[in-house]
Amino acid sequence: MALNILKFFLPKDDLFYSLFESASVNAEKISGKLLELVHENDHTKRAGIIKEMKDIEHENDNVTHQVFMELGHNFITPFDREDIHSLALALDDVCDYVYDAAKKIMLYNIDPSDQGIQKLAIAIQEGVLAVKEAVKEVRNLKNTKKIMECVIKINSAENKADDVFDLSIEKLFETESDAKQLIKMREIFQTMEEATDRCEDVGNVIESIVVKYA
Amino acid sequence: MALNILKFFLPKDDLFYSLFESASVNAEKISGKLLELVHENDHTKRAGIIKEMKDIEHENDNVTHQVFMELGHNFITPFDREDIHSLALALDDVCDYVYDAAKKIMLYNIDPSDQGIQKLAIAIQEGVLAVKEAVKEVRNLKNTKKIMECVIKINSAENKADDVFDLSIEKLFETESDAKQLIKMREIFQTMEEATDRCEDVGNVIESIVVKYA
Amino acid sequence: MALNILKFFLPKDDLFYSLFESASVNAEKISGKLLELVHENDHTKRAGIIKEMKDIEHENDNVTHQVFMELGHNFITPFDREDIHSLALALDDVCDYVYDAAKKIMLYNIDPSDQGIQKLAIAIQEGVLAVKEAVKEVRNLKNTKKIMECVIKINSAENKADDVFDLSIEKLFETESDAKQLIKMREIFQTMEEATDRCEDVGNVIESIVVKYA
Repeated sequence: MALNILKFFLPKDDLFYSLFESASVNAEKISGKLLELVHENDHTKRAGIIKEMKDIEHENDNVTHQVFMELGHNFITPFDREDIHSLALALDDVCDYVYDAAKKIMLYNIDPSDQGIQKLAIAIQEGVLAVKEAVKEVRNLKNTKKIMECVIKINSAENKADDVFDLSIEKLFETESDAKQLIKMREIFQTMEEATDRCEDVGNVIESIVVKYA
Repeated sequence: MALNILKFFLPKDDLFYSLFESASVNAEKISGKLLELVHENDHTKRAGIIKEMKDIEHENDNVTHQVFMELGHNFITPFDREDIHSLALALDDVCDYVYDAAKKIMLYNIDPSDQGIQKLAIAIQEGVLAVKEAVKEVRNLKNTKKIMECVIKINSAENKADDVFDLSIEKLFETESDAKQLIKMREIFQTMEEATDRCEDVGNVIESIVVKYA
Repeated sequence: MALNILKFFLPKDDLFYSLFESASVNAEKISGKLLELVHENDHTKRAGIIKEMKDIEHENDNVTHQVFMELGHNFITPFDREDIHSLALALDDVCDYVYDAAKKIMLYNIDPSDQGIQKLAIAIQEGVLAVKEAVKEVRNLKNTKKIMECVIKINSAENKADDVFDLSIEKLFETESDAKQLIKMREIFQTMEEATDRCEDVGNVIESIVVKYA
């Protein structure tokens, strides 16, 4: 009986870790689709990719929602409830920004073969892959070194996106004479760059979890 | 005597709850004024409404300041001091963004009869009303279901604002040929949309309070 | 021996305080360089100033990194690990935004003698000086009054920047006929105004530390 009581109080760690991993897999999927999108010349096929991205984003909303619901049910959590809350929100933001960037490419009818857009899509994927690796390590917070390496990778993807952004904006102002087009392109560069900022947010949350619990 | 000592240690819960409710009533008032503003054809009357909004915003700064001062005085608080701090800041932001949107409509001399602007003003009010309801429930954190319903309402107002924003921006780029006017309108749409993001922030803080204390 | 054990457990407070002070001194230096930049007519000399700013920003990245590394090593910290984390991040953001504003002035080849730009550079420096004063007081959290005065100074610098921003944007829309130039100037005003928001973030973190520990 003592064992049963113990069981009752045991943290449902696995559930939270699995949900975070699902969210990071969704981030990986959606950033993969973004990369596909910016190398797709056919407008109709691009619309199909956006549709798939919408589904991933929607599915991820469910994952995030499940984290919040579980937070309400479980008594013991692997780490502070507010950290779980922050991590779920940050991971959700990554998907949202990637989808948002793709939506704007369609909405503004932008040719995604632009060098800056394609390089930003690569930087986003690099950031997201490092996020996925870092999230996997949250299961075993003892491997601080590995987590810190992931955080450095995330930050380096964000720095890379910053540089591509600066160069793209500089070139845009030099070469684009149509103000509307300039505003549209600038907004897409910005949303893509911000997607890597959201990856950095995930890194910051994980870093602060490490600081508290590792 | 034991009772007196107890009294001394009793939390001044009521005070904090009342201040939060005042802040949410101010948010309700100022979003009501915004709705009035965007249906007012007379420029001089619009200037009068902005003046009233400025007064509400200023009054709310005092409420927020009082929360911070009380945080310094009281020993026991209904929930963590940093949550009280976050909730006060988030509620303050709602008022600030609504006032900011109104100020920009005046500053840029924009005709507020635009469909997008009017729909965004409605979405803001929906978000703010749900915020007010949620804040009222913070007094009794046990009614988790009701709070979660409010949070869902807040998020749905934010989603609605997102959709109106996307459509308005799409239409703007299609129909507006003057780049200056386009930049101005875009900024107003954005500030209004962000006002609903700030409502969502309030919802997130309340959700995380529920997660910790309910 | 008892004393030695005690020593071992004593917080390395001094180290954290010194690192925060270094970060605030870097913020002071870089905002001083920004002020120099916007009063420098010679383009080549401006390039030299930007180079110096880059070095300060880079040096400050090292300070921030050292805070995070120490957080991993030390057992007892002067206040919550997450507050130290937040304060280091917020101080780092101040430097980043100031450098970012300067970089944009160069990138867009903007004449920095614009009244709005020069006034914003002054508001940033006022905010940063108040940040530096506040950080110094974090060593002795008992002087709540002094800290609150600094926070008020920071907020007043931010309000001043807001007003300059509003007026500059209004004037820009009235007088600038070239859409590209308008977009560039607006972005510089915005980045500079946001640098004072980041000072306010530092103030908010310090305020919430005071609320918890003073």
